[in-house]
Amino acid sequence: MKKEKNNGFEIIKGGGVCAPLGFTASARVADIKGKKKGNLDLTLLVSDVPCQTAAVFTTNRVSAAPVRYDKALLEKKQEVRGAIVNSGGANACTGAEGLENAKKTASMAEKALGFPAGSLLVASTGVIGAQLPMDRISANIPALCEELEDDNGGLFARAVMTTDTVAKEVAVLVNTDDGSYVIGGACKGAGMIDPAMATFLGFITTDMALCAAELQGLLKEAADETFNAITIDGDMSTNDTLMAFANGMSEVSLADGKHREQFYAAFKWVCRELALMVVRDGEGATKLVTVEVTGAKSGTEAKLCASKIANSPLVKTMFAGCDPNWGRLMSSAGASGAEFDPDGVSIWFNDMLYVKNSTLIDTALEEKACGIMKQPEYTIKLDLGAGKGAALCYTCDMTTEYIKINADYRS
Amino acid sequence: MKKEKNNGFEIIKGGGVCAPLGFTASARVADIKGKKKGNLDLTLLVSDVPCQTAAVFTTNRVSAAPVRYDKALLEKKQEVRGAIVNSGGANACTGAEGLENAKKTASMAEKALGFPAGSLLVASTGVIGAQLPMDRISANIPALCEELEDDNGGLFARAVMTTDTVAKEVAVLVNTDDGSYVIGGACKGAGMIDPAMATFLGFITTDMALCAAELQGLLKEAADETFNAITIDGDMSTNDTLMAFANGMSEVSLADGKHREQFYAAFKWVCRELALMVVRDGEGATKLVTVEVTGAKSGTEAKLCASKIANSPLVKTMFAGCDPNWGRLMSSAGASGAEFDPDGVSIWFNDMLYVKNSTLIDTALEEKACGIMKQPEYTIKLDLGAGKGAALCYTCDMTTEYIKINADYRS
Repeated sequence: MKKEKNNGFEIIKGGGVCAPLGFTASARVADIKGKKKGNLDLTLLVSDVPCQTAAVFTTNRVSAAPVRYDKALLEKKQEVRGAIVNSGGANACTGAEGLENAKKTASMAEKALGFPAGSLLVASTGVIGAQLPMDRISANIPALCEELEDDNGGLFARAVMTTDTVAKEVAVLVNTDDGSYVIGGACKGAGMIDPAMATFLGFITTDMALCAAELQGLLKEAADETFNAITIDGDMSTNDTLMAFANGMSEVSLADGKHREQFYAAFKWVCRELALMVVRDGEGATKLVTVEVTGAKSGTEAKLCASKIANSPLVKTMFAGCDPNWGRLMSSAGASGAEFDPDGVSIWFNDMLYVKNSTLIDTALEEKACGIMKQPEYTIKLDLGAGKGAALCYTCDMTTEYIKINADYRS
Repeated sequence: MKKEKNNGFEIIKGGGVCAPLGFTASARVADIKGKKKGNLDLTLLVSDVPCQTAAVFTTNRVSAAPVRYDKALLEKKQEVRGAIVNSGGANACTGAEGLENAKKTASMAEKALGFPAGSLLVASTGVIGAQLPMDRISANIPALCEELEDDNGGLFARAVMTTDTVAKEVAVLVNTDDGSYVIGGACKGAGMIDPAMATFLGFITTDMALCAAELQGLLKEAADETFNAITIDGDMSTNDTLMAFANGMSEVSLADGKHREQFYAAFKWVCRELALMVVRDGEGATKLVTVEVTGAKSGTEAKLCASKIANSPLVKTMFAGCDPNWGRLMSSAGASGAEFDPDGVSIWFNDMLYVKNSTLIDTALEEKACGIMKQPEYTIKLDLGAGKGAALCYTCDMTTEYIKINADYRS
């Protein structure tokens, strides 16, 4: 594994969810989708020892069977061994049979691994409304359980992909005077990404020792600042799940609070990196745009405004066209529900002040703004001049590719 | 003028806003946009006698100068002679100069027509943020005022177009035992159309005699049921304006209440026809889809749910791909905020029951659903099974053409 210095910790290339001590994974081609054959679509993540476990889920009223299954399990216990995950089918809107299939999937893997019932979480992603092909899942579970290896983090990341074009994983090593620990992560998500997390599955692993309650608090906080601040198309899925597993196998513990600050920072850095990978890989996306809103009456209003802008098809097509049509930013801000003086808005493209008091400073700046918009990553900042509320959203452009992908998704 | 029988009234082909007695219009090429030359973009609508006048405007906090001008004028008086309208520039985010330009435009036309100040409303549509070219507007006003004719309704409808591909106008003649009256209308709007009315300008004229207060109530009611129930892309503009002018030149009056029911029905029919023309002409749209939600806990929740579905890019790209991927409907409904049992939803494609208790009835129905989705117009109905609330939304598919139009809008 190659290592790079960064922000007081080292980025480990490769490894992903298996980078921390004691985590293994495996992945198989189970042909769950039935039509597109040959892709890894069933994967298992297991810790050598029980993990303190936390999770956050979609707030969509129509939640998938695996979401319901996991929620019920985590209400009873916060210590599990890992998760079994499939792509190619969301197991959502599948009724009682779907819930039974989620249970069966976990149960078959638990038996094959010699674990007690309730040791594994489940997650699914893919088309809504079809039943999982349980014959093909059960046929692959024995091999899946035999093939667990600590260098299969990459396979895990590949197996959870749907319309993703690249596998998304990252890991960091943190050295402390008590020893070192690792945080790893993998996720999938490309379309249907929303500030409310959407068609996204995320998995964070660590060998740090901390309790499930603290992990839950941190995971929620990190999700709000990262995964819940990204948007691809404003849709919100039935399956969103972000899980975190801490197996305590490193020499380092959060118990005395000494390593807390550093651990929180590294954990959030991992989440942010994964979130930005999702936006960069947005369906048909060619640009990563950070939308920053400052000067709102409150943080909530800032988020409302940033999210409205980041989700607007007119804004996102303007990003695609590299057209600094700032009126669309004004119009979205005005439609967001945030309160501000419509004549008192300033807009920056990166560091360039472009609009002041809601009017263009100089048409001569247009060309420079176009230049900024041709870059693969840039920031649009609006100051509403109404208070101290601030928020960030990460979004991408909306291209003709997005339409093609989503008009043809199932065929 | 050709006439057709329909719903107790006759549809007049051609005529539009000039179909009722006493209304005249004119239109000129003023090259307001500067880049695309040769299109009608400045137009005048005038009644021979003062009109009782009503209007509804965008709720976007960032409202355009003409919206601010009209609101202020209508607070003082409800009797005007007509409106001067331009396409090619929204006169929004143009500061004090923009407001001054809106005033000047009205004032120049009023002087040329010999009207007292405050006789004309103004409306603008086009790119946000650029000042109107007042030299080209003033140069065209004398001819505009001289060329008023009662058969120029078609020119008016053409001159208000921006990304519209067809001019939108309609008129109906209603015969009563007290004589006949006419209701005419024209509008523009193709992108940025939202349940909250968006980049839309609409103009309704009638020679019926009724007071401004009643006209205002009717206009608001009609807008909620028609223009506010359509969506193209979920964006909401700075310029939305719907105006209605009643000059009382027919023999018929609403005063005794005798003609009220028929007049309201005909007025709403005109509004609905115009609204559907807008959806059919949605940027890049090839299909008109009616999204009907029933069984919601309340009318408000039904509207919330229908609107979320009608605005979802994933749903709209599914319409484009003729793919009955009903999971996207479930997912959007679940994300809408409406309360319902996620296992108790039924879905119809036209009259075909497709999903019951939130599960697909039979995969064999998929082919039939595809067939329905290949039609240019169809209805998707969801029953949430939670109450008696119902609402309709009219939407269109989202195609690669939509992206091309909006990425290249200004260039």
